[in-house]
Amino acid sequence: SSRPWRGWRCTMASGGIRYDSDSVFAKIVRGELPCVKLFETLHAIAILDAFPMVKGHALLIPKAGFPTLADCPPAVAADVLRELPRLVRAVMEATGAEGVNVVSNNGAAAGQEVFHVHFHVIPRSAGDGLVRFAPSAAQMLDSASAEEVAMAIRERLASAGPDDASAPPVAGTPLAMLLDAHALVLRLHEFVHRHVDALVVRVVRALFGRLLG
Amino acid sequence: SSRPWRGWRCTMASGGIRYDSDSVFAKIVRGELPCVKLFETLHAIAILDAFPMVKGHALLIPKAGFPTLADCPPAVAADVLRELPRLVRAVMEATGAEGVNVVSNNGAAAGQEVFHVHFHVIPRSAGDGLVRFAPSAAQMLDSASAEEVAMAIRERLASAGPDDASAPPVAGTPLAMLLDAHALVLRLHEFVHRHVDALVVRVVRALFGRLLG
Repeated sequence: SSRPWRGWRCTMASGGIRYDSDSVFAKIVRGELPCVKLFETLHAIAILDAFPMVKGHALLIPKAGFPTLADCPPAVAADVLRELPRLVRAVMEATGAEGVNVVSNNGAAAGQEVFHVHFHVIPRSAGDGLVRFAPSAAQMLDSASAEEVAMAIRERLASAGPDDASAPPVAGTPLAMLLDAHALVLRLHEFVHRHVDALVVRVVRALFGRLLG
Repeated sequence: SSRPWRGWRCTMASGGIRYDSDSVFAKIVRGELPCVKLFETLHAIAILDAFPMVKGHALLIPKAGFPTLADCPPAVAADVLRELPRLVRAVMEATGAEGVNVVSNNGAAAGQEVFHVHFHVIPRSAGDGLVRFAPSAAQMLDSASAEEVAMAIRERLASAGPDDASAPPVAGTPLAMLLDAHALVLRLHEFVHRHVDALVVRVVRALFGRLLG
């Protein structure tokens, strides 16, 4: 295929799970299996779940192939999951659901069945019992056991290196204010960038359309 | 506060849910309540759930205040959810969990209790029964009812206007190849951008450190 993001066969798997390039979602992404498509971007497709828990049960699926969310580069997560809000809105409005669960199961122990990352969007009505959770702790986490597990998690984060350079500085300092301004500029930059991108795509499309008939 | 993204009080709510700026997560984001923090970026904080379902139960929370995922701008979803993979990895490694569920409950009917968007990261072991789903449909969705609900969802998506200008062109055409190249350049651009950002932050930090003692 000439499309590098189509069925990008990747076998990284921090959890030791191999990417299955013959899974049903891998095949749907490559266009080898049919699906009921809701929308498609360069990075993701949204489809109806073929075996829905409830009417309107939808899936958001990265085009890039990673077995679990643990294996996804941050840029892939960002490119794909930016589509969640509009999918959630559309599913809620179309089904009249009172709420939705957004769920990604990672690993067989978590209920994952297809080893190509995906997010379920499950329309909910009060009392339907579609998704049930074990009760939360009756007592608030005590600080000793909290710190123990938090330290273990922080160590893993630190040993993985910084994924994001933007750990915030102390509030109220000149650096904090400078970085706040910087964040606003970045947001603006992204806004402009996306709209210029859209324009470029439209112009190129029109141009090619004329050149190639 | 001088920090525009701190407790950004927003009452947009497509589902009719008002943002509660006095919720526990709003207060944690503003630093008015303590938490066991795992990491923080300009856009998000990751903390331990204070009433965990299981050891290592973590939360990823946008700093910007929106009641549900339906109310989140796509850029906020992207900025926040790009942090999911590393949080998932760190929680799995630190707890030795075999899998994790990533879950966002939106609306009371879906089990949402705090009306400030958040994603649960729930460590799982085989047979622990922490998260249970209703059975999927026994029979595959038939195309008539699939098309009915898909059309309704597509109509909502269309009436909301394009969120993403990058609906892909027909595969194999020059335009498709051009856009593939463009996507790769954008990925590279983002990579460089993030590392230059990190460098700028470090230099500015060092500079201010010297200037202000």
